[in-house]
Amino acid sequence: MFTNVEHIGIAVRDITASNNLFTKLLNVAPYKSETVASEGVTTSFFRVNETKIELLEATNSDSPIAKFLEKKGEGIHHIAFEVDDIQAEMDRLKAEGFTLLNETPKRGADNKLVCFLHPKGTNSVLVELCQERKE
Amino acid sequence: MFTNVEHIGIAVRDITASNNLFTKLLNVAPYKSETVASEGVTTSFFRVNETKIELLEATNSDSPIAKFLEKKGEGIHHIAFEVDDIQAEMDRLKAEGFTLLNETPKRGADNKLVCFLHPKGTNSVLVELCQERKE
Repeated sequence: MFTNVEHIGIAVRDITASNNLFTKLLNVAPYKSETVASEGVTTSFFRVNETKIELLEATNSDSPIAKFLEKKGEGIHHIAFEVDDIQAEMDRLKAEGFTLLNETPKRGADNKLVCFLHPKGTNSVLVELCQERKE
Repeated sequence: MFTNVEHIGIAVRDITASNNLFTKLLNVAPYKSETVASEGVTTSFFRVNETKIELLEATNSDSPIAKFLEKKGEGIHHIAFEVDDIQAEMDRLKAEGFTLLNETPKRGADNKLVCFLHPKGTNSVLVELCQERKE
């Protein structure tokens, strides 16, 4: 079950400048910064009610964020939905014909297990499923 | 004050097909459809916890959604934040240097007063402020 819009990911070129910009916009400071080496990103998180805004800066030129910035420029990168049972949702969506970008849940930022859906099957929206890691 | 991520707007070419797609994805049916003639859009809304997913189809070729689709294709179009006092937030953001696309709140879909910020000042993210209309 999709239980929440957990976060919205935004690709930025300069996370320090964008932290300042989004602090002014949202009138709240980021509460956390985290680098996910496996994804090649540095992230920062702002909270608005039950949804987070996640800024993403590439840490190297092979990062998916570097490729996104090169192709499309800055802007909204993905929507992440919190699910109560990520494996069950992955199985359900695969059976519905969606293409999963990873076949088993993988570790993402913010202590989550995550799975991305191929945007060709979702009106070009990059959709992430995420579930809090329990251990 | 920004009180919630009220909705995420997604530009689509064929809202009937996309309603079916998002019904499968979110495992919930749209609860409302609405045409906003002044904006040249037909919309449909899905609810995920306290945030809505709004699909937007253009009703004519002058619609901002038609122009977005032509330039960028389908995908995430905007993020709408609920605010408790839209005029106060517009004044605050203008003083912070953001560019408002409308100088006074205007009527949007879903019984809202809305204001958009120019994406050139927000890392290319089209940001909407919205407040429920009271009358």
